[in-house]
Amino acid sequence: MSTPSITRRLWRDVTLFDGLDTQPQPMAVVVAGDRIERVVPMSELDPAEAVACETLGRGGVMTPGLIDCHTHLVFGGSRADEFEKRLEGVSYEEIARQGGGILSTVRATREASEPELFALARPRLEALMREGVTTVEIKSGYGLSVADELKMLRVARRLGEALPVRVVTTLLGAHALPPEYQGDSDGYIDLVCREMIPAAAAQGLADAVDVFCEKIAFSVAQCERVFEAAATHGLPIKAHAEQLSNLGGSAMAARHGALSADHIEYLDAAGVAALREAGSTAVLLPGAFHTLRETQLPPIAALREAGVPMAVATDANPGSSPLFMPTLMLNFACTLFRLTPREALAGMTAHGARALGLHRQSLGRIAEGAPADLCLWDAETPAELAYAVQPGRLRQRIFQGQCNFHGELTHGQSQH
Amino acid sequence: MSTPSITRRLWRDVTLFDGLDTQPQPMAVVVAGDRIERVVPMSELDPAEAVACETLGRGGVMTPGLIDCHTHLVFGGSRADEFEKRLEGVSYEEIARQGGGILSTVRATREASEPELFALARPRLEALMREGVTTVEIKSGYGLSVADELKMLRVARRLGEALPVRVVTTLLGAHALPPEYQGDSDGYIDLVCREMIPAAAAQGLADAVDVFCEKIAFSVAQCERVFEAAATHGLPIKAHAEQLSNLGGSAMAARHGALSADHIEYLDAAGVAALREAGSTAVLLPGAFHTLRETQLPPIAALREAGVPMAVATDANPGSSPLFMPTLMLNFACTLFRLTPREALAGMTAHGARALGLHRQSLGRIAEGAPADLCLWDAETPAELAYAVQPGRLRQRIFQGQCNFHGELTHGQSQH
Ligand SMILES: [Zn+2]
Ligand SMILES: [Zn+2]
Repeated sequence: MSTPSITRRLWRDVTLFDGLDTQPQPMAVVVAGDRIERVVPMSELDPAEAVACETLGRGGVMTPGLIDCHTHLVFGGSRADEFEKRLEGVSYEEIARQGGGILSTVRATREASEPELFALARPRLEALMREGVTTVEIKSGYGLSVADELKMLRVARRLGEALPVRVVTTLLGAHALPPEYQGDSDGYIDLVCREMIPAAAAQGLADAVDVFCEKIAFSVAQCERVFEAAATHGLPIKAHAEQLSNLGGSAMAARHGALSADHIEYLDAAGVAALREAGSTAVLLPGAFHTLRETQLPPIAALREAGVPMAVATDANPGSSPLFMPTLMLNFACTLFRLTPREALAGMTAHGARALGLHRQSLGRIAEGAPADLCLWDAETPAELAYAVQPGRLRQRIFQGQCNFHGELTHGQSQH
Repeated sequence: MSTPSITRRLWRDVTLFDGLDTQPQPMAVVVAGDRIERVVPMSELDPAEAVACETLGRGGVMTPGLIDCHTHLVFGGSRADEFEKRLEGVSYEEIARQGGGILSTVRATREASEPELFALARPRLEALMREGVTTVEIKSGYGLSVADELKMLRVARRLGEALPVRVVTTLLGAHALPPEYQGDSDGYIDLVCREMIPAAAAQGLADAVDVFCEKIAFSVAQCERVFEAAATHGLPIKAHAEQLSNLGGSAMAARHGALSADHIEYLDAAGVAALREAGSTAVLLPGAFHTLRETQLPPIAALREAGVPMAVATDANPGSSPLFMPTLMLNFACTLFRLTPREALAGMTAHGARALGLHRQSLGRIAEGAPADLCLWDAETPAELAYAVQPGRLRQRIFQGQCNFHGELTHGQSQH
């Protein structure tokens, strides 16, 4: 017997969404190690090649592993109580007086140890993985001190080491003004630029730097200072912008070569043009739109016409989007934002990868040479994944060529 | 050794939502056979009694098994294609010309055999069960002939026999006008009254009779004829009413003692009073509200003030609510309809049971003597179940005293 070479794995007769489009005929996909080796119509599959492969699946819909390019998965505390109080008629002001809102999450996150934050974030991440996520971005932003922001980023890195998922980290020091800097937001931005970013960069903890550019957070000028500091340390940038008003944060971020502008409900024509010019991705977050009951829709038609890639993400966070379900976002993107199912799926695959700067490695695509991150779904067509909200349709989840059944992931949580 | 008597099972230290309210202290629940035997604060749990029990769980949130009191789970075909076409800009008229809409579901349902319909419905029902459903109502309404309506009801009954879930069936012959009766809706109502209802009653296939009272469906007078026929055969009634306009269908149904009026976005004060008077339940269906992007909210404050019980259900169906996820409805009921988490949970437990006329048996409650249909959730508080959308939080699902882990349910679908 010859020494076995690398195992080749075959999926037959799949309906393939390759990250941008649905293939018109049944396809075969061959994976060698952690890479996709061949993607061909079934009619062109060499029988000898097929026999040499381990067949891992027949039929179903295959997509790239889902990419959730915008989350705040690591945090302490719960805001369920606040959610309940608001619905029981307690005013925002009263809740703020009682210590609610984002600062309650900051307080709980600061108080939590790294192992505690890890234990809290893990089931949230597993929920995303059970519904197909193979790459997830995780932001800091609830520490708001050098030590606590780095702590959050370390937890994010550890999640990626402990679980079969690719974690991309983002330093979001400029998320909110911490209590100890009230009245001195420029002083806090100094801290972000002079200490947080250099420390995160030196320790290799951040893959990018993000800001919250909004009247209730930081000004365009302050965010620009953060971006200049990021550039000094060679870190890519992105922005929460134009969510509640049009300040021009997206255009400024685009001028600095931002990977993405996120939320962008209030983005205007000049903003769309700036994103197109810079090659930035528009990240749509319909979960926050739903939770906040917003009515201002992002400029989908203008983005589409300009050819700006549109990504879709959960924005999973305890305040404005406690929605830990990527497939729900496919439905929301269509139903609330009127994306087509194809656009929604591209938004969580090829364009999700682009929002993270990972498209150059063909992440988010099913193509020869691309990483073998794949999902096989119990569905007839890719459109069904956006049309029907039905958790548990993931039949196989393949990360770096290894097959993780979602049943195994859930099993770990069961207990007598 | 003495002969073992009936096995007693114990859950300790649970945070209990009993179907109407959250208990303020940690609770113990003892199940004997298929009934709940004792529900006491942990401080009152007799240690000797505890030792005599098999402990099946500690901590977590316990609720009654969820009750989805309004679904259309049995159908043929898929409307994903139509969903996609609409988002790609094809008009409703063009889709209708191409044979889309509800009549495409009728066509596919008529063409499907009973085993085919069973195989299609089963994964939808399993998706509901994985998120906590232990009782589900399933309507006919896509057959629209005597034979095809009875076929749908038989499939619904078989689902309840094959899976660990309580299925309640409803004859919805008056759902839409079949093509062969175009221009003769009174003739079709004759068929429903003179043949469908008697046949379903004679064969014990229907637990209730439903109608769709709307301009695009049947008039109040036609629906009243259906109710009179149902009464003749001793079947309880309910109505889809006031979804798109205010015709007074709910009030008419209430006068006939309806179990529930469902949708009711356009219900007026007289309608609210009629429901209160009759003791009918208001069934809220936020999934259809979401999918159809409605803006008219049901009169929640008026219903609350009048003390009309409000149930919440998925309305799972291929057209207006392809959402097979009960826990998502908890979130939607709060976020879209402004129910409190307590009201939303009662809507899928105690009040869901009431909408099905099963509250007399204490279904939907955690109380001594009630059926042992229970869910144990990975959560800190009941409110979290409505606040966060995170599939897979169901740790244990107990149906008639038997524990079904959701991991086992999903496993059946995995395959190499
Ligand atoms: Zn965000
Ligand atoms: Zn319905």
